[in-house]
Amino acid sequence: MEGPIERIGAVVRAGQRQPISAAVAWDRLVFVSGQVPMTPAGPAAPDIAGQTHATLDAIERILRDAGCTLEDVVKTTVWLTDAADYPAFNAAYAERFPADQAPARSTVIAGLIAPVKVEIEAVAVRPAA
Amino acid sequence: MEGPIERIGAVVRAGQRQPISAAVAWDRLVFVSGQVPMTPAGPAAPDIAGQTHATLDAIERILRDAGCTLEDVVKTTVWLTDAADYPAFNAAYAERFPADQAPARSTVIAGLIAPVKVEIEAVAVRPAA
Amino acid sequence: MEGPIERIGAVVRAGQRQPISAAVAWDRLVFVSGQVPMTPAGPAAPDIAGQTHATLDAIERILRDAGCTLEDVVKTTVWLTDAADYPAFNAAYAERFPADQAPARSTVIAGLIAPVKVEIEAVAVRPAA
Repeated sequence: MEGPIERIGAVVRAGQRQPISAAVAWDRLVFVSGQVPMTPAGPAAPDIAGQTHATLDAIERILRDAGCTLEDVVKTTVWLTDAADYPAFNAAYAERFPADQAPARSTVIAGLIAPVKVEIEAVAVRPAA
Repeated sequence: MEGPIERIGAVVRAGQRQPISAAVAWDRLVFVSGQVPMTPAGPAAPDIAGQTHATLDAIERILRDAGCTLEDVVKTTVWLTDAADYPAFNAAYAERFPADQAPARSTVIAGLIAPVKVEIEAVAVRPAA
Repeated sequence: MEGPIERIGAVVRAGQRQPISAAVAWDRLVFVSGQVPMTPAGPAAPDIAGQTHATLDAIERILRDAGCTLEDVVKTTVWLTDAADYPAFNAAYAERFPADQAPARSTVIAGLIAPVKVEIEAVAVRPAA
């Protein structure tokens, strides 16, 4: 594979630039940082369904900046804070990733830094330039 | 790198197709979803050694569908629910991955969705077509 | 992409070779195993800042064996044992990864096998041979 490493999207929190790129792309591979459903005012939604959609919205925006869409995602890692949220998470996720075009996925329970219920990272393969 | 994204293996739970591909391949890279040692009747084994082997068996089957074997695995991520299981997990894992051909690996403690002790995901590089 | 899988660096603990390669490279991609700030005598530092630097030192050494540096890292995954350590972790991490050259990153809270506060894994894209 060819070409330079491309860093996409500054991450700013509380007015401070973070040591994180929203995504890094190289050739057709795009690595998207773990996204959480946070807004400057707090969680983007109270429930796991709304938080899942907000997280995937954030990933979608970053992928667009990298030249691709959710259809190009090949792998996600999902961290939930509460296993009881799994069914509603999975239903919301399924609205964004049809079963016959779904990425590979791992889903585990962990603590998160932000006061939210879900974090999702993604690897995508964007179309050839 | 060239070629289309290839989605390998539907995931069905409780009769319902899930928004997950067992693996997604692109060019020589294969991303395998986190596998757990579950059968329709419950955990595949009561102990961590048996559960580790059942998990690696599942990965091996998926890799075969993608055109490769455990020898082609370059990275695994392992989630254990109990750090006390680590020595027995590691011994079983070593039976499948000889030290001089072992993947890179990260192993951490997390909660899992299924009532099992271990989940493993893998990235492989399959032979050139 | 071309070429063989290259396994870099044996991992030895308590005198025993582990079923882990410190890194595995293929073509320009380098997958570095989760590193922890452990020495034979125990944790490399008492505090999270020192532990973060020791962990990134370990990754830097492995990347050097693979033919690259921290500047070539495209993605990290960070596991902290305590969310309260996040600010000091992030400050130390920022000393090693300038914001405008930072990898994509996911940071979550998990238990670790070793008695330390942080584990970090990395994916790098090394310069063309």
